[in-house]
Amino acid sequence: MSGAVPDLEAAVAEIVETLRHRVDRGEVASYIPELASADPRAFGIVVANADGSVVSGGASETPFSIQSISKVFTLTLALGKFGDRLWRRVGREPSGSPFNSVVQLEREQGIPRNPFINAGAIAVTDLILSGHQPREALGEILRFMQFLADDPSITIDRAVAASEHRTGFRNAALANYMKSFGVLDNPVNFTLGVYFHHCAIAMSCRQLAIAGRFLACDGKNPSTGFKVVPAERARRINALMLTCGHYDGSGEFAYRVGLPGKSGVGGGILAIAPGKASIAVWSPGLDANGNSHLGRTALEMLTAKMGWSIFKA
Amino acid sequence: MSGAVPDLEAAVAEIVETLRHRVDRGEVASYIPELASADPRAFGIVVANADGSVVSGGASETPFSIQSISKVFTLTLALGKFGDRLWRRVGREPSGSPFNSVVQLEREQGIPRNPFINAGAIAVTDLILSGHQPREALGEILRFMQFLADDPSITIDRAVAASEHRTGFRNAALANYMKSFGVLDNPVNFTLGVYFHHCAIAMSCRQLAIAGRFLACDGKNPSTGFKVVPAERARRINALMLTCGHYDGSGEFAYRVGLPGKSGVGGGILAIAPGKASIAVWSPGLDANGNSHLGRTALEMLTAKMGWSIFKA
Amino acid sequence: MSGAVPDLEAAVAEIVETLRHRVDRGEVASYIPELASADPRAFGIVVANADGSVVSGGASETPFSIQSISKVFTLTLALGKFGDRLWRRVGREPSGSPFNSVVQLEREQGIPRNPFINAGAIAVTDLILSGHQPREALGEILRFMQFLADDPSITIDRAVAASEHRTGFRNAALANYMKSFGVLDNPVNFTLGVYFHHCAIAMSCRQLAIAGRFLACDGKNPSTGFKVVPAERARRINALMLTCGHYDGSGEFAYRVGLPGKSGVGGGILAIAPGKASIAVWSPGLDANGNSHLGRTALEMLTAKMGWSIFKA
Amino acid sequence: MSGAVPDLEAAVAEIVETLRHRVDRGEVASYIPELASADPRAFGIVVANADGSVVSGGASETPFSIQSISKVFTLTLALGKFGDRLWRRVGREPSGSPFNSVVQLEREQGIPRNPFINAGAIAVTDLILSGHQPREALGEILRFMQFLADDPSITIDRAVAASEHRTGFRNAALANYMKSFGVLDNPVNFTLGVYFHHCAIAMSCRQLAIAGRFLACDGKNPSTGFKVVPAERARRINALMLTCGHYDGSGEFAYRVGLPGKSGVGGGILAIAPGKASIAVWSPGLDANGNSHLGRTALEMLTAKMGWSIFKA
Repeated sequence: MSGAVPDLEAAVAEIVETLRHRVDRGEVASYIPELASADPRAFGIVVANADGSVVSGGASETPFSIQSISKVFTLTLALGKFGDRLWRRVGREPSGSPFNSVVQLEREQGIPRNPFINAGAIAVTDLILSGHQPREALGEILRFMQFLADDPSITIDRAVAASEHRTGFRNAALANYMKSFGVLDNPVNFTLGVYFHHCAIAMSCRQLAIAGRFLACDGKNPSTGFKVVPAERARRINALMLTCGHYDGSGEFAYRVGLPGKSGVGGGILAIAPGKASIAVWSPGLDANGNSHLGRTALEMLTAKMGWSIFKA
Repeated sequence: MSGAVPDLEAAVAEIVETLRHRVDRGEVASYIPELASADPRAFGIVVANADGSVVSGGASETPFSIQSISKVFTLTLALGKFGDRLWRRVGREPSGSPFNSVVQLEREQGIPRNPFINAGAIAVTDLILSGHQPREALGEILRFMQFLADDPSITIDRAVAASEHRTGFRNAALANYMKSFGVLDNPVNFTLGVYFHHCAIAMSCRQLAIAGRFLACDGKNPSTGFKVVPAERARRINALMLTCGHYDGSGEFAYRVGLPGKSGVGGGILAIAPGKASIAVWSPGLDANGNSHLGRTALEMLTAKMGWSIFKA
Repeated sequence: MSGAVPDLEAAVAEIVETLRHRVDRGEVASYIPELASADPRAFGIVVANADGSVVSGGASETPFSIQSISKVFTLTLALGKFGDRLWRRVGREPSGSPFNSVVQLEREQGIPRNPFINAGAIAVTDLILSGHQPREALGEILRFMQFLADDPSITIDRAVAASEHRTGFRNAALANYMKSFGVLDNPVNFTLGVYFHHCAIAMSCRQLAIAGRFLACDGKNPSTGFKVVPAERARRINALMLTCGHYDGSGEFAYRVGLPGKSGVGGGILAIAPGKASIAVWSPGLDANGNSHLGRTALEMLTAKMGWSIFKA
Repeated sequence: MSGAVPDLEAAVAEIVETLRHRVDRGEVASYIPELASADPRAFGIVVANADGSVVSGGASETPFSIQSISKVFTLTLALGKFGDRLWRRVGREPSGSPFNSVVQLEREQGIPRNPFINAGAIAVTDLILSGHQPREALGEILRFMQFLADDPSITIDRAVAASEHRTGFRNAALANYMKSFGVLDNPVNFTLGVYFHHCAIAMSCRQLAIAGRFLACDGKNPSTGFKVVPAERARRINALMLTCGHYDGSGEFAYRVGLPGKSGVGGGILAIAPGKASIAVWSPGLDANGNSHLGRTALEMLTAKMGWSIFKA
């Protein structure tokens, strides 16, 4: 942790200490047993700074199901492979409706509003899958995560993926709906298989914060200097995270936290302070919008303490 | 213009020169004669820097109808008077639908999604009006604009207001709809009267950019040091502008320009580069979403040249 | 009452007696004081047979606010004046949504789905008003009702109309919405004035059943032989009453009662047994769909006893 | 054909002759090759009278894909097995939206509005399937059709069923959507399999008209006197056909034809004149609502000539 700004270490420690005593911790997702069994008392935070230093607190090394946070990385991967052609299949506007709504799809001819609602992420996954076997596509996504996190030990929790697939009727409805409009190229079950599996990738806050650093550093890995994406693309992914990253709670997240972020139903949130840090927080209890309750609280405290809001002078 | 960064002057000059030759200038709003008569060749830009300097180009002194840009200032005024109680009447989420949609109101019991869609701005105006005569409320709004722009010559274009009121059936539908849910306190016609009049305020790019400076400077007037709003509120207004400021084109604006902004159907856009500048652009031709076509193009060029995106390292 | 089928007299008497003891009588409409003060114990029924005879029971002579039942008669009047041109302004399909929904209007460019939802009836009223002063149009409607009921004593309850107008923001929203699409020709307030007044016509079950007879008799007054409308038009109005007459409870009414019918929030229902009778029932308590609870129950009993369902062999 | 009313024979002959020369015949469904290959010049009509006589014209013996007309019979079968418990899964109101809309499902928690839109029919099929293998359930449906039509030669067109299943993504979306709300009990693919197969039953106008007779005869087979359903149920099925049988064209069909009816995308329509006749028409060209263009025209002519509208005195 050498090289970290002292303030930051104190801020993270204070957040961990403050939240340890919080009684209202939200509700753990219960739609599949693998998520339902998460410990609501768990909390972890890792700040991966632009200078390469890392500050952590709480259960920073415990792997959790990253779920929808994976959508940031599949989008990045798909943009790398398809460029702006991707936007023929997916929009770039906030949805104004819940993460799994099909109403918008009907109004807009099967084109999902953005790549972070379920339908949009499924369409992105379908693009990555094109021309490949599901196993290959999934391997590519996993290797990309391992590469970004610089950690080949990252794996997929197959029990989570299997449970998701077995009960994921709403996502199957979305996928079939898009398929009926020709928005998906591959067999629905193949696309859903890859989707459920990449959502089931298990990562720790440390791995996640490291993996997100390129978004805080104009597309580059600050340790190696490797350019993951062009600077303009990093900015644009951040913009999408800000406007669409928390489903129908995106406005609220921007209003309170003031950073681009993407949440997952496993209780994780990845937030980006451009030029400063990539931050991963994790606490399994969710608020009414399906976002980590303590996770968001921690980020709100952190940006306030550090003055990291992108809306600040 | 002393004190301006040289780069900025060159950038503004180049933008003015480049756009002078553009043939595709969008379509001028035609729903009332006062707007329809605007010259599609007009273009102006003013950058009011955080250091107090100002750089301008094109028709920077020509007054135009600020229309929905006024919603940023009525929100600021109403937050000053009512604080967070305002949020009982208006949400903070992007709408995912056109600026004048009533569908969302029906789904959400008459509570508009955010203060920048028409329904939300009407609800904000109704709050300002409460306990006052329309004339008084309107006077208060106008004086606030004159104060912020440091220019008592700013006036309301009464012909525009009268035309809006005469033809504003869609807004009357929204207002009556909210009134049926008890979201408005005052007589519908009073509230609409104030609303149509504050939308009809005429300002130049210079006046508008100056008026918006407090949002770029954590709530303070950089010339006088006067604190218009607390720093946190300035950040939050910026967040709302980013997620909701361009109606159903907000995601696109964030993606391309990367700054909080608010557009008006008169062809103006106010954009905020926190810590750097308040920027006003004006060109009457609109794109399909009702936002100034050249205005957005100019902002896209400016942020690219100056590296001002809030999503950048 | 000479000439009535004996069975019918017994059936009506039994219905009156049975319903007298019912405890669950629904909820009286409470949105304006004039309706809220209705006696929930009131119940009246009149069957005006195709042979000219009349059978009545309960409070058959008590006037009540016919409210939306008036829409059957304004439609009849407007079709007489404008013929099929009327259908350029109003559709003929069930709405699938509540009586005062604006969502459908947005989806279908301001054209209401049918003449019996509020928006559709307002559009029909606007047609009748065209080229006239509100007072004249209202006089024409009232005289038409008096003529059909053969009773010049029928009047408008001006207190009801005034209350409706004062509180009718939802209807004002619908009217302004349609006006914004050019579906209304007259000033919104004029059209609403006539609409609120014709809804405030007060009639007894006897007057209403008599007025509806032409619909049971292929367009003719069975006593005088006067042809109110062509036979085909009578059939078509009946078809519209069946598919659209009870808002979003129309399917249920068809399923249970099996007759074309139109309900009003004042607790009245007019039902037509083609070739047999025009039936008016009244009881102020409403079910969840806003239709008279005992009124529908009475009609369900009557059609079962008399075998009058149009879906029966 | 002895016993038929002479007028009827002449009417049918005239209809056949008139329509033979019609140039505007609608568009044949093209979403699967098996339907796309239908001959647009084909036209058949059979009137099965309540007295047991039958009058036919055109291609009355040619089998066609009955498609959604099968929903009338699966509803009848399911009501026989489950009675009013069926209505916990399906509503009884017109949908106000296209046959395959998912918007209504989202608004109403996965409960389809009525048994004749696709979602509703799939839910009914799921009930029939419960506790059985798909093959058994399908056998039961087919035997029921053979029994009603008194013709054991009726079969399922397996090529049609296979094409439907292969391309039926929209129906798969609806089924998965309902499954996500727990409205379906069986594996989605099982339920869809049975659904696609019963829609692929091939019948001639003669077979279909005979099969529908019980609905015209208060639930009884007029030839054998066998009671298929109680009289009240027959009435109620007729009511549902009238309000919901033609999707979002149901109001129009009631307005023009004035009979309960159910159409199929194969170009068939079954219409019921209670107490008089069961009528099957077939012509593959469809109107904009997906209903047989000449089929509806024929029924409009027939009811006008015969005076069979249920809305007539």
